[in-house]
Amino acid sequence: MKKLINDPDQVVADALVGIEAAYPGRLAVDHAHRVVHRADAPVRGKVGLVSGGGSGHEPLHAGFVGPGMLDAACAGEVFTSPTPDQVLAASRIVDGGAGVLHIVKNYTGDIMNFEMAAELLGAEGGPPVASVVTADDVAVQDSLYTAGRRGVGVTVLVEKIAGAAAAQGRGLADVAAVAARVADSGRSMGVALTSCTVPSAGRPTFDLPEDEMEIGIGIHGEPGRFRRPLGSAAEIAEQLVVPVTDDLDLTGAPVIALLNGMGATPLLELYVMYGEVARLLEARGVGVARTLVGNYITSLDMAGCSLTLLRADDELLGLWDAPVDTPGLRWGA
Amino acid sequence: MKKLINDPDQVVADALVGIEAAYPGRLAVDHAHRVVHRADAPVRGKVGLVSGGGSGHEPLHAGFVGPGMLDAACAGEVFTSPTPDQVLAASRIVDGGAGVLHIVKNYTGDIMNFEMAAELLGAEGGPPVASVVTADDVAVQDSLYTAGRRGVGVTVLVEKIAGAAAAQGRGLADVAAVAARVADSGRSMGVALTSCTVPSAGRPTFDLPEDEMEIGIGIHGEPGRFRRPLGSAAEIAEQLVVPVTDDLDLTGAPVIALLNGMGATPLLELYVMYGEVARLLEARGVGVARTLVGNYITSLDMAGCSLTLLRADDELLGLWDAPVDTPGLRWGA
Repeated sequence: MKKLINDPDQVVADALVGIEAAYPGRLAVDHAHRVVHRADAPVRGKVGLVSGGGSGHEPLHAGFVGPGMLDAACAGEVFTSPTPDQVLAASRIVDGGAGVLHIVKNYTGDIMNFEMAAELLGAEGGPPVASVVTADDVAVQDSLYTAGRRGVGVTVLVEKIAGAAAAQGRGLADVAAVAARVADSGRSMGVALTSCTVPSAGRPTFDLPEDEMEIGIGIHGEPGRFRRPLGSAAEIAEQLVVPVTDDLDLTGAPVIALLNGMGATPLLELYVMYGEVARLLEARGVGVARTLVGNYITSLDMAGCSLTLLRADDELLGLWDAPVDTPGLRWGA
Repeated sequence: MKKLINDPDQVVADALVGIEAAYPGRLAVDHAHRVVHRADAPVRGKVGLVSGGGSGHEPLHAGFVGPGMLDAACAGEVFTSPTPDQVLAASRIVDGGAGVLHIVKNYTGDIMNFEMAAELLGAEGGPPVASVVTADDVAVQDSLYTAGRRGVGVTVLVEKIAGAAAAQGRGLADVAAVAARVADSGRSMGVALTSCTVPSAGRPTFDLPEDEMEIGIGIHGEPGRFRRPLGSAAEIAEQLVVPVTDDLDLTGAPVIALLNGMGATPLLELYVMYGEVARLLEARGVGVARTLVGNYITSLDMAGCSLTLLRADDELLGLWDAPVDTPGLRWGA
């Protein structure tokens, strides 16, 4: 295992020290609870957005904390759900009097722990809480850690778009409805060329022969649909585009496309892949209005990529274009 | 070799198709010359900024084309200098009547070909050309492809800051002077945990045993200072910070810090590294005013990172903070 780390069991704690040092005045960290939050939290009168999950997917979630996106992110251990205590602490930190939205990826532990935190908040007379669950991965119906589809790339889009709605001063029900609409309107599919290696395990999560790839991989290395010989970018693009566009009609609407690197795939390859994806989408009559190409929801040092397509509309595009100021996404601010 | 590509010999051409598809209306590509340029080039009355070099370092350079940064980037073959013809074509495209600045990394082929292009431009009565050479890598004095120090991470900072100066409408001599000041005021040092693999070669550029790292690596896999057993993030940070801060006094001035991933290193590890770098800099009395943590000047699929520190001042910070709108760097716009 070759990684730029100190103690494999301290990776998350050490990374939080680093992200706090890198963005002083913008981000602050509650190290006891491993919560990264806006330095100016809570923002009075604004719905507070909390997300989180296992670490190892950076910039998701901590790198998406800032004006126009999340108010706080809970960092679980690598590939491990954050505890109810963490979510509770984060929700208290961001409570500006307008309620709190929890953005949760569909994994059994995450769902359970965010729900428990919402109950604890209710019991202590805390702010009203709404939650949205992302479950956009078309690869498999149920999986290792999931009842129903896994939540993957659309989470980035939910955090951005709901964050913009909250920044406009909309109420909790409205922000939650926007978030749910995004979650419902996006689909994803991924491919791995290599496994990732969890630091505390010290060896690859799974074996993938030198001449094979895994189609439909999860962001924790969960099994996908099938393995096949390593294909060309054009072939791989087809393996991603077809199941996504078969699952959801994306014609006749502006689409937001996220071509995401899994952590160890360089941008040069993502550009090659995007060229193939764009060609296939055009042939299928899908009109891409906005693109994001890069590393946004990673899987440690896995090589590979995922494609997320969102059926948007003018309202969602406007929220997408609104200013955002986070380490991972920043524009107009 | 596991890569998301089609034909290994068509990687650059395919990537240019992809980047053009990903940023319609913002970037355009002269495919015959492999020049990526602002879709609205030339900008009348503005100094045109041209850079370029071998491909494989994305987002550098094509990903830094846009308002507030480069007007055009020439994409050479992987790790191969662009030809004089490419630089000539790019310079013509961006000529808005106020002259052209060439930003060149210090590699023998790059220097020669940019110079030749400048001569050809002069011979055809083209715009006045100034050029700035980056040579910020403190690792080695001369190297495989270089007389003098290699140009690495400071190139990103030169492109951003000179781009902002040009966007303010400053004249060629002034923009060139700002660029030179940045180039002179930055130093870098890198480390590799793995080799990169050039697509057309199909095998790693060099062998690095599983338990070793190479300190002072170049961005093409050129040999560094020495190899040693893989260290902790804290030890590696010291190997980067000490030679950089020994080479240039960074105390008493606001510093811009770029902690750059080499392509296959995930952000989680870069955050861990930045925590260690920040601790060492604070102990040495270096005050970091701005940070950039992520993949900005990569080396294909190399695992590792580099640290670039720039001794800035109020003028350079102001130019750094100015709006920029490129695929790789974007804020305030």
